[in-house]
Amino acid sequence: MAVGLTDLPVLLPVAGVRLGTAAAGVRKPGRPDVMVLEIARGGVTAAVFTRNAFCAAPVIVAREHLSGAAPRLLLVNSGNANAGTGAEGLEAARECCRALAERAGCRTEEVLPFSTGVIGEPLPVDRIVGGLAAALESLSEDGWPAAARAIMTTDTVPKGVSRQITIDGRPVTLTGIAKGAGMIRPDMATMMCYIATDAWVAPALLRRCLTGAVARSFNRITVDGDTSTNDACVVAATGASGVRLADDDDRLAAFAAALDDVCTALAQAIVRDGEGATKFVTVQVDGGASRAECLQAAYAIAHSPLVKTALFASDPNWGRILAAVGRAGIPDLDVARIGIHLDGVRIVRDGGRDPEYTEARGQAAMAQEEITIGVHLGRGACSETVWTTDLSFEYVRINAEYRT
Amino acid sequence: MAVGLTDLPVLLPVAGVRLGTAAAGVRKPGRPDVMVLEIARGGVTAAVFTRNAFCAAPVIVAREHLSGAAPRLLLVNSGNANAGTGAEGLEAARECCRALAERAGCRTEEVLPFSTGVIGEPLPVDRIVGGLAAALESLSEDGWPAAARAIMTTDTVPKGVSRQITIDGRPVTLTGIAKGAGMIRPDMATMMCYIATDAWVAPALLRRCLTGAVARSFNRITVDGDTSTNDACVVAATGASGVRLADDDDRLAAFAAALDDVCTALAQAIVRDGEGATKFVTVQVDGGASRAECLQAAYAIAHSPLVKTALFASDPNWGRILAAVGRAGIPDLDVARIGIHLDGVRIVRDGGRDPEYTEARGQAAMAQEEITIGVHLGRGACSETVWTTDLSFEYVRINAEYRT
Repeated sequence: MAVGLTDLPVLLPVAGVRLGTAAAGVRKPGRPDVMVLEIARGGVTAAVFTRNAFCAAPVIVAREHLSGAAPRLLLVNSGNANAGTGAEGLEAARECCRALAERAGCRTEEVLPFSTGVIGEPLPVDRIVGGLAAALESLSEDGWPAAARAIMTTDTVPKGVSRQITIDGRPVTLTGIAKGAGMIRPDMATMMCYIATDAWVAPALLRRCLTGAVARSFNRITVDGDTSTNDACVVAATGASGVRLADDDDRLAAFAAALDDVCTALAQAIVRDGEGATKFVTVQVDGGASRAECLQAAYAIAHSPLVKTALFASDPNWGRILAAVGRAGIPDLDVARIGIHLDGVRIVRDGGRDPEYTEARGQAAMAQEEITIGVHLGRGACSETVWTTDLSFEYVRINAEYRT
Repeated sequence: MAVGLTDLPVLLPVAGVRLGTAAAGVRKPGRPDVMVLEIARGGVTAAVFTRNAFCAAPVIVAREHLSGAAPRLLLVNSGNANAGTGAEGLEAARECCRALAERAGCRTEEVLPFSTGVIGEPLPVDRIVGGLAAALESLSEDGWPAAARAIMTTDTVPKGVSRQITIDGRPVTLTGIAKGAGMIRPDMATMMCYIATDAWVAPALLRRCLTGAVARSFNRITVDGDTSTNDACVVAATGASGVRLADDDDRLAAFAAALDDVCTALAQAIVRDGEGATKFVTVQVDGGASRAECLQAAYAIAHSPLVKTALFASDPNWGRILAAVGRAGIPDLDVARIGIHLDGVRIVRDGGRDPEYTEARGQAAMAQEEITIGVHLGRGACSETVWTTDLSFEYVRINAEYRT
């Protein structure tokens, strides 16, 4: 069960964007697994992709197509990642794009392909192509909730968020959906995220806004430290609201802040639905000499199986947090200056147990579903935050049984 | 259950070394938890310790004492790590050394303290001191098996090994014991390892032999990527065999090879008894441009929760191995040159699935208790090997329930 996530919130339509889905039987019959997102002509699209050296075939093809044309259609399938599939995988991704372009009356380069699911198995092109007609027929501005469901794999809940801001007296809408629950340590992008807005944003500015938002959201989460081969985050700006953002001004800043907000909500939703998660954990490291060393300490904690199993057990075993900070590789770390707290409860002060700390207070903090682990390094003024989950029996079950 | 480990093999006595144990009730009553190892006067001792910045109080005290005197006694307790305990922890470690020195008739600096167990709780000095008389009374050259049991924490089996070689026509014996099952990614040493030999080895040469052996054994294993605050590895050379090694010659090389062998057997035993382990996994990476990048790839695989849960499930989900190599941070990795095999079964050739690979062959390889994951990087002539385990339900149970 996802931590603190109920069902989807209301997802506002974005003028100029329609979404359709189909159950094509990519991996299992009877569940929606193909999604098409249509962007009205004239829209601007920016995207970031995984930096895993083994990026999947659709990532390679999407990058190629993006460099040559403004995207009109995103084609997403779940159930199969089309990764580790070599030259045949590239041809399969291109074949899916060709088939959709033909049916939709656009050029192949105007289609971006995305796949998520099992790695190393051939993409069932025929089944995906067989679902395209139904997906196109169902295209609708209200298609966001169904689209959020169609891109799920081990996700237990669909993930989406909308924000509305006012620019020049006009409402501007941003709506985004995301999927991801395991193999989550995004590196430049999340597993998959599709965002649209009815503002028009100049291409270079849209790219900059997206890169910044991703850095502060998807690039600050980890479930299991494994970076996917298929990570992708796309934002499309249709301009249908009449609002045009062509300058680096306060109006752009308002849009960028809203995009940050959407990305952060979706990134946190991925962690909340992390495989087997029973806790949503914020790791805040401050007092660092650099942001890089704060991240080193934060990820050492967030990736430690011992910290994560203690979180699962609601056990305030702070020695494991301390040991993780100690092995994070921060040079000349002065342990006598370290502080650790769990939410409001200070446990370690100046490198030793706080005299006022009691196990009962630590246990009360750990019993919560949402926990903040705070670490003070005592070396400077920099800070960083990452979000993560615990490590439960369910994580092992999901990943031991994934292909069965 | 430990993978491929039966009960202790015969542990040969080492002339000049006696071991005694006691059940002092450090954490739980009725189990041996204090161990004393006595080194005859004239012996040479070398040791390496954890590089975790939060090293435990006994590590600090042992380093101090080592720099001032030749050790006569090692004092080890299980059940409490005396780590994260600040100034009181240092005083507690010193107090235990003083008490033992007094009873044994030596100087405090001639005692090295070692602790393993829960982090962050005060060391119960009175209970440990209360067990010293019994430990000293039981000192015996045949005390190795009991000593191996007294230093266990979450270990399910005691770990020890003996080797005998011939130098100058005389038998030279090496016997070692080790403990460790979780928080295992040693950095200069394992959780705890005590080795003795009846050769005499010049101090600088003994240090060099130990450092080399540790680099090739304990520093090549990982269970969960967490480096302990208390890692220590000690070797004592009594000289009782009459063999003296004072030169960097073939005789020293023979001794060094035997020490490597002892360390490797003990390091592998720790992995075989890794918390929740159902598999013993050798990760061999070759074809690297440097040994460092081979290690990067090997540890990315060995630490990946997704690879480890697939191993637990005996699922040849090689896409996870490929994704781990892809995120290992090797610059300019050419994925078209990568090869992957499971034991003799080649899965990936030149970056894509080997045409002859079948799921049935992969499954047969994965079904074994002992598995070699081979990765060929296709960039050079360097190679590295690390040993690790799978990630099972039992790992989560052990670490979620550790303090209860």
